[in-house]
Amino acid sequence: MTRRQLHLNAFLMGVGHHEAAWRHPRTDPTVLSDVRHYQNLARIAERGTFDSVFLADGVQLMGDVAHTAAPHFEPLTLLSAIATATEHIGLVATASTGFSEPYNLARWFSSLDHISGGRAGWNIVTTAGDRAAQNFGRDHNAEHAERYRRAAEFVEVATALWDSWEDDAVLADQASGHFADPDRVHEIGHRGPFFGVRGPLNHVRSPQGRPLLVQAGSSEDGRDFAAAHAEAVFTAQQQLADAQGFYRDLKARATATGREPESLKVLPGIVPVLGSTTEEAARLSAELDGLIVPERAVRALSELIGVDLTGHPLDEPLPPLPPVSRINGAKSRFELVRDLAERERLTLRSLLGRLGGGRGHQVVAGTPEQLADHIEHWFTHDAADGFNIMAALLPSGLEEFVDHVVPELRRRGLFRTGYTGRTLREHYGLPRPASRYTAPALA
Amino acid sequence: MTRRQLHLNAFLMGVGHHEAAWRHPRTDPTVLSDVRHYQNLARIAERGTFDSVFLADGVQLMGDVAHTAAPHFEPLTLLSAIATATEHIGLVATASTGFSEPYNLARWFSSLDHISGGRAGWNIVTTAGDRAAQNFGRDHNAEHAERYRRAAEFVEVATALWDSWEDDAVLADQASGHFADPDRVHEIGHRGPFFGVRGPLNHVRSPQGRPLLVQAGSSEDGRDFAAAHAEAVFTAQQQLADAQGFYRDLKARATATGREPESLKVLPGIVPVLGSTTEEAARLSAELDGLIVPERAVRALSELIGVDLTGHPLDEPLPPLPPVSRINGAKSRFELVRDLAERERLTLRSLLGRLGGGRGHQVVAGTPEQLADHIEHWFTHDAADGFNIMAALLPSGLEEFVDHVVPELRRRGLFRTGYTGRTLREHYGLPRPASRYTAPALA
Repeated sequence: MTRRQLHLNAFLMGVGHHEAAWRHPRTDPTVLSDVRHYQNLARIAERGTFDSVFLADGVQLMGDVAHTAAPHFEPLTLLSAIATATEHIGLVATASTGFSEPYNLARWFSSLDHISGGRAGWNIVTTAGDRAAQNFGRDHNAEHAERYRRAAEFVEVATALWDSWEDDAVLADQASGHFADPDRVHEIGHRGPFFGVRGPLNHVRSPQGRPLLVQAGSSEDGRDFAAAHAEAVFTAQQQLADAQGFYRDLKARATATGREPESLKVLPGIVPVLGSTTEEAARLSAELDGLIVPERAVRALSELIGVDLTGHPLDEPLPPLPPVSRINGAKSRFELVRDLAERERLTLRSLLGRLGGGRGHQVVAGTPEQLADHIEHWFTHDAADGFNIMAALLPSGLEEFVDHVVPELRRRGLFRTGYTGRTLREHYGLPRPASRYTAPALA
Repeated sequence: MTRRQLHLNAFLMGVGHHEAAWRHPRTDPTVLSDVRHYQNLARIAERGTFDSVFLADGVQLMGDVAHTAAPHFEPLTLLSAIATATEHIGLVATASTGFSEPYNLARWFSSLDHISGGRAGWNIVTTAGDRAAQNFGRDHNAEHAERYRRAAEFVEVATALWDSWEDDAVLADQASGHFADPDRVHEIGHRGPFFGVRGPLNHVRSPQGRPLLVQAGSSEDGRDFAAAHAEAVFTAQQQLADAQGFYRDLKARATATGREPESLKVLPGIVPVLGSTTEEAARLSAELDGLIVPERAVRALSELIGVDLTGHPLDEPLPPLPPVSRINGAKSRFELVRDLAERERLTLRSLLGRLGGGRGHQVVAGTPEQLADHIEHWFTHDAADGFNIMAALLPSGLEEFVDHVVPELRRRGLFRTGYTGRTLREHYGLPRPASRYTAPALA
């Protein structure tokens, strides 16, 4: 009998997720704009039979350029280049519903799915913050609930476009000159409050039908959105009990919309900091935290939670924070930081150290066996269907995970030893959606 | 002494530029969505030391799906995948200023330029037609002159974004923790009638500084736009005298804006139909025209010139056409078709045959030597700086051109025998632009 299997996603970010990664002697910041660096990371993850790699994105320059390795590739183009250097691994790109048009976005993901032979995934983000809006002709961003209303309509339009060519629409009959069956190519005729899109898409249906839909918002709006649309959810969780609560809540919301709970995979983020002994791992963790530039980290934290903390004394506890209802950014991240600071009575400086590793994601320093124990514990205690692996240093942290933690997970029967599926949906055990325009076959 | 050198661009389109290419036994329409087909085409062109490959684009489904091989990849993602399969050849993607945002578009091209090591080019189109607008929330497209006003502001914003990180902005000083010099990273602070963009871009300056700027509009507005912004111009010309007039006019307009005439390369389109004898070439040409489905071709012609010709008898001359001032589509293409039909007193059916090969571009059927003669004649008689090669059938037509016409052009000393430059700008003999934010060095 086969045990339930873990899903692992490799979250790729520059030379590592720790905010000071680029300063550590084990990284080389000159590779940040070199496509071969990212192709190499994806091949390492593929060697570890990960389900997918994932790229975050923003439509503004984030952080303080003086101290932050902030410049980054546009994800769809980069993943297209990675697609040709890999064979199996899924390719998940972040793209914003706030600052793009559904017809354009549907084309990019259809194209990536064709290029990769069915390995594309879309991490749907609404994009918070006025700085993003100011690159698109507006002084202020839309408020939280409106961003999610736009996102829901956006996904509705995009999925209709991906369905607009039925699977068997193309005939390509050279003799008769019939290229496609016009009855199987559909205008979508969408008219809504945010978008008007006639369709059809100008590419045939892609290998997966639709890209895998991923989401990472954990607020009330975000959870409802995920329950309705997402097939995989990335989340930041610091405590087992909180993670279990989130997991239970999300599966319940999905069930309430008529979905099977297994059709939605929950993957908390985890920042592994590995050493061959506990002490070695702790030493690396301390080295990294020691490279944090506090003024920069305070600005980044202020951006992350949407509250200005610059000028606050580093060695005092946080000032009183506003209620979450007044936060217009990433609400769940605000709550996570607030709870962490209160629970452990952290000064601002200690909070920066705790967050520097993964911007709110859980940092686990230890030996490969300790990492595997932690993963197994959360996985078998209803807190996770898998994990979003955010190596503190890249490529070294991902290599260590693949070479030492993955074999341990395989020995325990928790993780695949080779790819059995061909598409990203098959890796995650999710079905290929039928086109909404195709009549179901008669029984 | 070196002769002036030709520039050759390979215009890639599905399985060939002839509208019935997909029906011909020498093509395989099942490769239309296979990335390896396009990688193979680019490698053939690279073997022929072409300056670049080029992909057209539209933001709507074009033509009649019953008879048209219309579905196509999004060009930026496809060229990113082609970049990793080639080393030298330039990669020119069409993207619309009418239906995208400058911040997004600047990121795609910066990313492609990084991925390819400095081989990106942007074919700037404004996109005509209501069908495109209807995929973006509008019933009607903007009128011709307004589309060009938007395009001019769009290019201004995009070039400012590409300049926003000066070339030496990144320090990446691990010891001090200084990642970039904030004085060399600039907000662009653009506020205009169409766009408001704060900047800076969220990626460092790319190898070419800016992608090569290409343009293909030949109307009055289009020529003024090209004279101000374009570094290469694609154009459809049927007659030597017209091509010479266009060439002279464009160089004069560029000179009037203070540019060197050599800073703008003019490349007429040419559809080679090759045979080892004149008769064999004529036979292939007739075979292809015989595969045209007339009803489909009339609809495509109506779309091309913006005048509804459906229902008009095939064996009669064209009906009287409206004045060009009333055409809101591609004005220069309308004029070309009108003049061709009048000059040769063509019936609608014969016009379809003449246009089927290349949608208004010149079709030249003959032996490799005849093709080389034709190219040399136009090139040495001030009609062209090079050609946009639009093979009727792909890959076979491009292979034949590379294997038989290119060697002939090399023998005549007209075309490179190997790449001497590294970037697309270097292939075209064009300088790398300095960032507008970088102070000129003192003399």
